[in-house]
This record gives sequence, structure tokens and C-alpha cells, in this order.
Amino acid sequence: MSDCIFCKIVEKEIPSTIVFEDADVLAFMDIGPIVKGHALVIPKQHHDPVTETPDEVLAKLFLTAKKIAKAQMNAFGAQGVNIMQNNGRAAGQEVEHIHVHVIPRFEEDGHHWNWNPKRYDDFDEMAKLADQLREQL
Amino acid sequence: MSDCIFCKIVEKEIPSTIVFEDADVLAFMDIGPIVKGHALVIPKQHHDPVTETPDEVLAKLFLTAKKIAKAQMNAFGAQGVNIMQNNGRAAGQEVEHIHVHVIPRFEEDGHHWNWNPKRYDDFDEMAKLADQLREQL
Repeated sequence: MSDCIFCKIVEKEIPSTIVFEDADVLAFMDIGPIVKGHALVIPKQHHDPVTETPDEVLAKLFLTAKKIAKAQMNAFGAQGVNIMQNNGRAAGQEVEHIHVHVIPRFEEDGHHWNWNPKRYDDFDEMAKLADQLREQL
Repeated sequence: MSDCIFCKIVEKEIPSTIVFEDADVLAFMDIGPIVKGHALVIPKQHHDPVTETPDEVLAKLFLTAKKIAKAQMNAFGAQGVNIMQNNGRAAGQEVEHIHVHVIPRFEEDGHHWNWNPKRYDDFDEMAKLADQLREQL
């Protein structure tokens, strides 16, 4: 898409620091890293969001994310890795071209996700939502 | 693995609220949801972390996450979805059996990831990390 910043990165119209590239995907450094070493994996073809991305493209994206995660462990001695894929502004997505964040983590990296689990009012509340999901699956 | 809570869920030794199941994967409700409707996708076989999970298992996990995301949009009217897979305690992983979080998101759901991008000191700092990654890819 002509106005998509990630398509421009694929076309090399905008510079990026590429770490991996093949016929289907591109992986490059996120210039606003959650933790330094944070990389993004994108498909060369424009797709968005995850629900509209073809299965074979999606599989390739996450298998590439696995390779990047392994490289972060080997290269940086990362003790953990977050793999995160956000869809929609409500989910924090900024660029509307599917991308997978691969974030190296260290015990003392200072980052904390705001992992704040809620509670269901009761079992029935959860069961009802599960029923609704099952109807769509 | 005998002491793995997710293996026990697969074996139905521990109850869960299942939304999808086939020969390879199980999807069930997270009882501590970031946003209500939050589901987990796991492989039936024990694997961990992502870097040690076979490619075909990993592809199946994320293709199932895509299905769950679509179901959350259709069933709940979710405006966004976070797909997140954490590896290692440093990354916030609690159960050491690979699992993919699928979290429905709404503009007014009240959840905010602590998305706090850092800055590299200069381009060379980022370029050096990219070089290190490339050597491992």
C-alpha cells in the first residue's frame, strides 16, 4: 500500500536496519525498543490484521519470530523473549501492516508489562463467554 | 510432564473451560483474564520455550490463535486483539508449557500495556546489536 510505512521499508524507500530477509518476510530493528535488541518481523506483502492474513504467511511470520528469538538468546544472552502481535488501535497497534514484536528480556531489564489479571464475577460469567466463543469456532 | 499444570489440563486431570480442541491443540479460558474473554492456546504435547517447539506445532498454535481472535471479534465485538507468547520468567512466563495468549480488546477496556519505548544512544548502538543478531541468523 502506497501510504504504508512498512511497505516502504520493504521497498527500501525508507531505511531500516535489517537483520533477516527472504522472499516472504523482513525482520528489522524496532527504533523504539521496549528492551534494546527488540526486532520486528513483517510479511513483504501487505496484510492486516491477523484475521485477514493468509495462514501460510502467518506461519512464516511466527517461524521467523522463533529464529529471531533464538538469535537474541544466542547473541545477547537473553533470558527470555516476548513475542507479541497487536491488532487494532484498541490493542495498541500503531502501523496497520501486520508485524510481530520479538523482544529480548533480561531479569534486570527494568521493563514490566502491566500484567494485571482480572477476576470473573463467577464461573457462569466465564462459561457464558466461552459458549459465545465456541459458537464462532 | 507429570508436574505440568497445562499437561494436566490436556489430560483432563484438572478442569478447564475449553473453547476449542483437536488432535494437536487445546484452547481454553484464562481464569485470570487481562480482559474478560481472554483465552489460551496450548499444544497437547509438552514443549517449551518457543525456540524448542517444533515448527509444525508452532504454526498450528498461531493459526489456532488466529481462529480464536476472529471468534473474539465476532462473538464479543472485540475492536482489537493482542496475541502474546512469553518465554522465560524474565519475560513474565509463569507456566513452562508453551502457550499463546489471545486477548480481546475494546477501546474502553481499561487495560494499558506498559508500552514504554526506549531510545538507542545512537545509531551505532542499534547497528551493533543488529550485527550480533545477523551473525546468529
